Amino acid sequence: MKGLLTLNNLPADKIKQIVAFSLDLKKGNKSVRYEGKKMATLFFEDSTRTLYSFQAAMLNLGITPVNVNIENSSVKKGESLYDTVKTFENIGFDGVVIRHKQNKYYNELTGITNMPVFNGGDGSNEHPTQTLLDLVTIYEEFGRFEGLKIAIVGDIKHSRVAHGNAHIMKQLGMEVYISGPKELMDDTATYITIDEAVEKMDIVMLLRVQLERHKKDVREMSLLEIQEYHHQYGLTKYRMERMKDNAIIMHPAPVNRGVEISNDVVECEKSRINRQMQNGVYARMAVISLVLDGKI
Amino acid sequence: MKGLLTLNNLPADKIKQIVAFSLDLKKGNKSVRYEGKKMATLFFEDSTRTLYSFQAAMLNLGITPVNVNIENSSVKKGESLYDTVKTFENIGFDGVVIRHKQNKYYNELTGITNMPVFNGGDGSNEHPTQTLLDLVTIYEEFGRFEGLKIAIVGDIKHSRVAHGNAHIMKQLGMEVYISGPKELMDDTATYITIDEAVEKMDIVMLLRVQLERHKKDVREMSLLEIQEYHHQYGLTKYRMERMKDNAIIMHPAPVNRGVEISNDVVECEKSRINRQMQNGVYARMAVISLVLDGKI
Amino acid sequence: MKGLLTLNNLPADKIKQIVAFSLDLKKGNKSVRYEGKKMATLFFEDSTRTLYSFQAAMLNLGITPVNVNIENSSVKKGESLYDTVKTFENIGFDGVVIRHKQNKYYNELTGITNMPVFNGGDGSNEHPTQTLLDLVTIYEEFGRFEGLKIAIVGDIKHSRVAHGNAHIMKQLGMEVYISGPKELMDDTATYITIDEAVEKMDIVMLLRVQLERHKKDVREMSLLEIQEYHHQYGLTKYRMERMKDNAIIMHPAPVNRGVEISNDVVECEKSRINRQMQNGVYARMAVISLVLDGKI
Repeated sequence: MKGLLTLNNLPADKIKQIVAFSLDLKKGNKSVRYEGKKMATLFFEDSTRTLYSFQAAMLNLGITPVNVNIENSSVKKGESLYDTVKTFENIGFDGVVIRHKQNKYYNELTGITNMPVFNGGDGSNEHPTQTLLDLVTIYEEFGRFEGLKIAIVGDIKHSRVAHGNAHIMKQLGMEVYISGPKELMDDTATYITIDEAVEKMDIVMLLRVQLERHKKDVREMSLLEIQEYHHQYGLTKYRMERMKDNAIIMHPAPVNRGVEISNDVVECEKSRINRQMQNGVYARMAVISLVLDGKI
Repeated sequence: MKGLLTLNNLPADKIKQIVAFSLDLKKGNKSVRYEGKKMATLFFEDSTRTLYSFQAAMLNLGITPVNVNIENSSVKKGESLYDTVKTFENIGFDGVVIRHKQNKYYNELTGITNMPVFNGGDGSNEHPTQTLLDLVTIYEEFGRFEGLKIAIVGDIKHSRVAHGNAHIMKQLGMEVYISGPKELMDDTATYITIDEAVEKMDIVMLLRVQLERHKKDVREMSLLEIQEYHHQYGLTKYRMERMKDNAIIMHPAPVNRGVEISNDVVECEKSRINRQMQNGVYARMAVISLVLDGKI
Repeated sequence: MKGLLTLNNLPADKIKQIVAFSLDLKKGNKSVRYEGKKMATLFFEDSTRTLYSFQAAMLNLGITPVNVNIENSSVKKGESLYDTVKTFENIGFDGVVIRHKQNKYYNELTGITNMPVFNGGDGSNEHPTQTLLDLVTIYEEFGRFEGLKIAIVGDIKHSRVAHGNAHIMKQLGMEVYISGPKELMDDTATYITIDEAVEKMDIVMLLRVQLERHKKDVREMSLLEIQEYHHQYGLTKYRMERMKDNAIIMHPAPVNRGVEISNDVVECEKSRINRQMQNGVYARMAVISLVLDGKI
């Protein structure tokens, strides 16, 4: 199937090529346009960053984005994902971006459409363009992947970002660790405490306490529980100050200020959270362009 | 009133002209552009195909589509359809597409607006661009209307597609029959069984069991009831195989796989369901263009 | 902060300049384009006129509008307005229009973004582009502000239109009065009865009975209560006919026909309600253009 559904079957070289192309687009070294094309965004889960970042990427490429309001679509009449996607191919769309709560939802689409499909996140499995923008941000910062130490901190078990990133980062020669409450860990990587993380890592990547997927919603947590989480697992200002000189902080956002990250750390000097969002547009432009040109 | 609200007052010649123009646009024999224009889509009922097909048609013509989210509009403050349409005229839109649950909703708009209004379906009454895309698909297949036999199968009573199509098709010289559960029939045309239909018709046009309008929702039907419906009135693979060599299958979609049509018949060689969706874009381009040029 | 959040800190000269520029754009004396730019609309309250008028204004300027569906955004995950706005800046938007139920919501954004923010209405406080379009309509009609008498009639207390307009109009040399049920008045201006208003004013500006903000919804009012309101405070046909020869009727819409204004007065010769909507597009084009050019 055309498009970008998973990074798992892409060789490391191809991933490095996407990262390099993203940075070329950012610096203005390269420029691509696809005037007259149109793509649809089908988001079965709430989103701001990914949805509008994809739309911004399309607009920057001269592609018209059309957002599909799932609530008012034929999905409400029971139409399947297969038939919905087939409809957009039939009416002449040049691609669709799909976010869906079901892991590997795209398996049911294999072999049925010639239209490119871009994965905007599938359940707790993967979020390939988030992984790519993280890699773009890391490469832009350090100029390499090999040997870099990263700790991913938070609800590893339910996070598609953690799963996608850990897999690819190891492949690219990075040392990956996980941190956070023990009951939210899995066998993705070696466990370390947040205090070890801030002292030893080049990158501390925080995850949002996954309010939507998890039993416990931050908005249901008592102030005491929030303080307890922040104290035990969060990136406090005190911890931030103990990080290595060149180390950076990342977070896929939206952040829970005062929970996994202290309010005054979100936009501190070490934070690359705003830059991640900026790079997301270039990573998505690169992916769309390479797919339309048949290079992925 | 400008626009396309009903096909009932259009002479057969005019309808044939729209069909021919649609096919010219499809083949690339003709090309029209309306850069800088903008049109709004106001859908008071759920839709995927019609809504995004109209948007695709506009984009292909260089027109910017703006979708109005009824849920977040002043309609929620009790604003009338008249005042809503007048607003879009006042703020400079070049047309609106309206789907509304009320039959002939457009009567309350007559004489009040110079802005073209396109009917995207009114209650159980009519769905003119669906009828046109069906005619485009039939003409593309057979090169004529005169003498063709069509059976419309399903919930005739509650279907705007059935009512609109039967009327026009007779006018164009086609022989129209209806089929399905007796309690869902009306006096639109002569009744035949599904088994007669598959043996004698050039076109078997299935309708969606009208879940939204009907008391009985497919999702409320027991497996036994579904099997019973499929067995008695549905287009099974066995029935499909008894159709005439050149006969075709049509369905306005979304389909209920395994209810009115067997899963493996939806995309079989005789099916023109995907092509109907493709042709819908050209039919809508033709209608918009002819209205903007003052030819309808 | 860049953008237009309030008119309160703009000198009268600047306001007159915006009005003049709006009318120049309307007459085609001036033309401005910002191709390739994109702006987002974030409406936390229902709207038709303001939302689509802003979108029409952007399209007329060559700017691509992207509407953010708040219901399906990360706001649902608890993301703050600050973080939401910051996201749109990060992903490269050239401006956002915000409507929010909280008065002066923009205070929490001050100093944090370089991206222009346009106020599409904040709670019961202000609606600056509505005020501007009202001024454009008045100036287009009378060729001056100085000495004109206006009565604003209705729920003054809960109306952002009333508060914004009264303040600026006085500054521009107009005589401002208020009218309506005593319990809905505040100290915005001198009180007069509707019968005094129709006899003495150059402009009678009706307000919508503010159904959404007010305890009492028109749709909850009994027919008797509606008739009573209409009789005591509404612009009846009889009252309209007693207005001065050159006096005009204004209303920000949506109107409640038969409540604050009689059905047959809405589009009578004295009414400028349709023209207000038309002018709204030009006022918003002027504001966007002046902000992008750094002139406001």
